[in-house]
Amino acid sequence: MPYHETGRVAMMRRSGLLCLLVALVWAGAVSHAVLAQAPAGDGPRYVNGTSLVRPEDYRAWPFLGSGLGLTYDAETAAPSTPPAFSNVFVNPSAYRAFLQTGTWPDGTVLLLEFRRSLTGTRPNTTGRFQGELTLLEAEVKDARFPGGWAYFTFGRPGAMLDAAPPIGGEEVERCIECHTEHTAVERTFVQFYPTLLEVARARGTVKPGF
Amino acid sequence: MPYHETGRVAMMRRSGLLCLLVALVWAGAVSHAVLAQAPAGDGPRYVNGTSLVRPEDYRAWPFLGSGLGLTYDAETAAPSTPPAFSNVFVNPSAYRAFLQTGTWPDGTVLLLEFRRSLTGTRPNTTGRFQGELTLLEAEVKDARFPGGWAYFTFGRPGAMLDAAPPIGGEEVERCIECHTEHTAVERTFVQFYPTLLEVARARGTVKPGF
Repeated sequence: MPYHETGRVAMMRRSGLLCLLVALVWAGAVSHAVLAQAPAGDGPRYVNGTSLVRPEDYRAWPFLGSGLGLTYDAETAAPSTPPAFSNVFVNPSAYRAFLQTGTWPDGTVLLLEFRRSLTGTRPNTTGRFQGELTLLEAEVKDARFPGGWAYFTFGRPGAMLDAAPPIGGEEVERCIECHTEHTAVERTFVQFYPTLLEVARARGTVKPGF
Repeated sequence: MPYHETGRVAMMRRSGLLCLLVALVWAGAVSHAVLAQAPAGDGPRYVNGTSLVRPEDYRAWPFLGSGLGLTYDAETAAPSTPPAFSNVFVNPSAYRAFLQTGTWPDGTVLLLEFRRSLTGTRPNTTGRFQGELTLLEAEVKDARFPGGWAYFTFGRPGAMLDAAPPIGGEEVERCIECHTEHTAVERTFVQFYPTLLEVARARGTVKPGF
């Protein structure tokens, strides 16, 4: 009988541990399945080390701001050409980090798209709205690049790259110069992203002069 | 001794059940915590039956399109007034449904914000970019309302409603008329949302004339 009872005790101990194990595995499976739907791992993906893979889902990323006629040039190139719209999006994890800190984490991916501007549609026939995509570019915070930021252009629809190499040479020098001299926060034009400008002001991360 | 052993068995049975219970509660807590971060349940929330609670996180929702000077009026009101930017966002679950079907599910929430347009900042001194919020409105697909859609205005910052009653009376008649006559898909201005217009064209859900 003592032996029998000891056997039952051991069996119950094993049974309790088994239940616990099953419950832990189940809990892990549930949290993994739910996490798989969350926007984790939304940072830059590269091929050949430094060529940025074009994010397919950036249109579902947080939108930061829009401009009309907001080109890289000091003046609008040709007044006869309709001005282009520009939209900026950022990967969700970097967006959440900026809301907390007013700064960008390593792995920030900013997408800049240019779109034709259209007009003449009812009910309002004089306002302008967004048409087809004409150009897609990106800026990425990655400590491997000089100054910690890299610039990419995917080009135009019809000839758009699936992965773009970083802009180099004299061209990137101009990117860096403009993104250093004229940007409100780090190397980004937060002065054009009104909700983030509020965050940066509250966190004290805006450069002097803005 | 038999009594003592029986006591140990009962204690171990309780202990095993307790472990299982703790594990199940922990698993539930983990899945709940993870789910709370996922974009589930992003549809309209009401108080008093039909007053729409202002979504706090709509700026992280998918962005559909931006306009400049795209007012409700046929012509821009006063040419001397700088034109306003308009941005439209939609709840993530409705966005995903539209990508699949080209139509809006019940529970669609479209947020329309108007923002001041600003200019004169380097590097480009003639383009326009977005400034502070001036007005926030919403359109919701909800079968309880006449025609299946309702319209809300949260007003201006400083006097913004946490929950807005549906627009009613003659005012909503004008909303419905314009959103019926001039919209490309159902009662929404998909002609101003270029990525969704492509989807609607592919799915054959665009009204004749667009």
